[in-house]
Amino acid sequence: MEEIIDEIKELIENKRVSQLHKKLETINSADFPTLFEELDEEEVIVIYRLLSKEKAAEVFAELDSDLQESLINALTDKELKSIIDQLFMDDATDLIEEMPANVVKRILKNINSENRKIINELLDYPEDSAGSIMTVEFVDLKESMTVQEAFDRIKKIGLKKETVYNCYVTDAKRKLLGTVELKDLLVSEREELIKDIMDTNTITVTTIMDKEEVAKKFDKYNFMALPVVDKEERLVGIITIDDAIDVLQEEVAEDFEKMAAMQPIEDSYFKTSVIKHSKNRIVWLLFLMLSSIVTGTIISKYEEAFAAVPILVAFIPMLMDTGGNCGAQSSTLIIRGLANDEIRIKDFFRVWWKEIRVALIVGIILAGVNGIRILLQYQNLQLAYVVGITLVITVIISKSLGCILPILAKKLKLDPAIMAAPLITTIVDTCSVLIFFNVAVMIMNI
Amino acid sequence: MEEIIDEIKELIENKRVSQLHKKLETINSADFPTLFEELDEEEVIVIYRLLSKEKAAEVFAELDSDLQESLINALTDKELKSIIDQLFMDDATDLIEEMPANVVKRILKNINSENRKIINELLDYPEDSAGSIMTVEFVDLKESMTVQEAFDRIKKIGLKKETVYNCYVTDAKRKLLGTVELKDLLVSEREELIKDIMDTNTITVTTIMDKEEVAKKFDKYNFMALPVVDKEERLVGIITIDDAIDVLQEEVAEDFEKMAAMQPIEDSYFKTSVIKHSKNRIVWLLFLMLSSIVTGTIISKYEEAFAAVPILVAFIPMLMDTGGNCGAQSSTLIIRGLANDEIRIKDFFRVWWKEIRVALIVGIILAGVNGIRILLQYQNLQLAYVVGITLVITVIISKSLGCILPILAKKLKLDPAIMAAPLITTIVDTCSVLIFFNVAVMIMNI
Repeated sequence: MEEIIDEIKELIENKRVSQLHKKLETINSADFPTLFEELDEEEVIVIYRLLSKEKAAEVFAELDSDLQESLINALTDKELKSIIDQLFMDDATDLIEEMPANVVKRILKNINSENRKIINELLDYPEDSAGSIMTVEFVDLKESMTVQEAFDRIKKIGLKKETVYNCYVTDAKRKLLGTVELKDLLVSEREELIKDIMDTNTITVTTIMDKEEVAKKFDKYNFMALPVVDKEERLVGIITIDDAIDVLQEEVAEDFEKMAAMQPIEDSYFKTSVIKHSKNRIVWLLFLMLSSIVTGTIISKYEEAFAAVPILVAFIPMLMDTGGNCGAQSSTLIIRGLANDEIRIKDFFRVWWKEIRVALIVGIILAGVNGIRILLQYQNLQLAYVVGITLVITVIISKSLGCILPILAKKLKLDPAIMAAPLITTIVDTCSVLIFFNVAVMIMNI
Repeated sequence: MEEIIDEIKELIENKRVSQLHKKLETINSADFPTLFEELDEEEVIVIYRLLSKEKAAEVFAELDSDLQESLINALTDKELKSIIDQLFMDDATDLIEEMPANVVKRILKNINSENRKIINELLDYPEDSAGSIMTVEFVDLKESMTVQEAFDRIKKIGLKKETVYNCYVTDAKRKLLGTVELKDLLVSEREELIKDIMDTNTITVTTIMDKEEVAKKFDKYNFMALPVVDKEERLVGIITIDDAIDVLQEEVAEDFEKMAAMQPIEDSYFKTSVIKHSKNRIVWLLFLMLSSIVTGTIISKYEEAFAAVPILVAFIPMLMDTGGNCGAQSSTLIIRGLANDEIRIKDFFRVWWKEIRVALIVGIILAGVNGIRILLQYQNLQLAYVVGITLVITVIISKSLGCILPILAKKLKLDPAIMAAPLITTIVDTCSVLIFFNVAVMIMNI
């Protein structure tokens, strides 16, 4: 990539327009954002104007919204119109959602009225619905067509990329009757009828279905595209695999953020402002901070105990951390398992039983290693017992909470991801300190 | 799905074989694992035998290895051979990798010698390489072919699913010259030559490339398939988008596990034994437990301080938890950003500066809220100062570590995911306790 950037820079400098034009057409659209980053704004505009109509639209869809905005401001109305005509309708809709009002006005002015209607419809779907991510461009066929007629129709519509590999058969009322894969058309005789080769076991999604559910269907069934129908079962669009992958990635990113006690950020790391970052982080931090005061209050109740045996205090961090880490391990596995439908609510007891056995093994090893350490460092067998017993109980409790809380959240139709490490750590802290001092008071007769 | 299962069960009970056969063909292959879970083993075998040859192979590839094994044991050699002949070569290779030795022997006996050779080659690629996930089935064309000849060749090879949408043009030595998308064939005239319509800007991957890198290319460029070449630039296979998605999902699962202080489990949650689960979790737990002893040792050095002002001890959990949570937030965002190539090593100072500003805002709010709480509860202004100052410094340190350590790991070519919440919590604990007692000694004149 770096060599290409150098080459392009040199061509710009020497004003080798026709060579530049040729070179640009060989670069993949997805590489242009990287290229543009290395050039100044004027150079970007020069280069962008050199692209062919189709390429210009492809590249445009890949850029981030800041660059899209400055390009739109630099282009003439005619140039803008040509790009927008070439965009997929879902990309055009995304664009309108992200641009400031004055830019939107200019875009809408340069869209023909038919497309403006489609965009308005797309803008109306709820944010997380299948409707909001679907493409309205697809190949529709009729039952009565022959394979040859189908080919002619595909050629005429002339769609790009992934939208062409599945064709949809509809009736006069646009109701979906079946699907035909392009490869099935290819291996069929030219005079065969579509109705004889179409597959009627069609899996569809509705416009209002949650986009995460849709993405999961792609993951499960290995579809390339899925048809989207409205309430009257009319075909209104399709969702292609690339958009489904984006949804899967987004959901994963959100899970990571929620599990680290943040509200999900919508933009990229750098495009989110410091104030917004702080806002997304402070809510959970405040809640968790105030919760951990409980642990502190419990500790202060045992003032006498640690006044008598001050070394007890030194074990608090280790017990809290180990409890937190054990809980984090279990909750992460369970939350992920729930997200992938690998673990279901009805598996609760199976999961819990597994976690308890793991906790026993892990707890005993940790207690053993720590016991040896205490004997070497303090030659205090009582202390080794107190810490060891507390460790085993803490590990069992934390691993239990790590599986109980996420599954409970799922049962209550909450997002299991909020029951992640930070919350469990806070709860386990309280438990471990309580157990620790009680065991100490009992065994050490304080 | 549940209605379908009930219907199937009824059909089995009443021995309605032909109806059963028809019903089964309408069920998507990916739904069979769920169906089989609800049936007993004998019923599964009865049903499986009713499937058409193609469907049987498709369904087989979807099943988990336990069920595959018991099916293989129930089938005759002839039935087994027919399934294996229909499997994609990469699925067949996966099967051999997972079956016990005696089953492998039976499988190999029923594979023809040509396929056995291919499988042996596939088994030779390193575990995480592009070679290990590629499919050897693809459509290869010659430059000199016409579009019509290309169609004939596609029909003859008659491939399934996603492998047909990109065709690969090779020379006599199998060197890759270019690619032709199926849709380009469709919109071209039948007499045009492949060499005139093929795209020569081909992005390829090598057999030994890391499969994660390959998957990222799919994510960036929205490919449906990528050609794989060997050292001599000969085309040896292709990787299709469904396999790339699997790799992306696997990598994400691994990141979640590493970030929760576990070694990644290779199998599903339930298929991993209690012993294996314990093994994967104990290493990090031991390491972190022993590390947090440092914090304990520091605390015990300040025995005098908390003997004089016992209430200090009550704030340790809150400081530790808040520091840990702040570090977890930053490290999670940075680790994810690095994984998505959104944050690069050279962005280090930009990221750090952002985190420091966020830390200042968040730290001051936390200190303020906590200060009010302390004044209300203890009417102790000094204590409010001590805790507040410690909080602000702790938040800044933890957010700094949360960005420094993952980027440092990346720079050292280690996996940034190991620098996640658990490790940072342990380090921040030590810092926060140290700061806390020093500030306390200073301000309170203990």
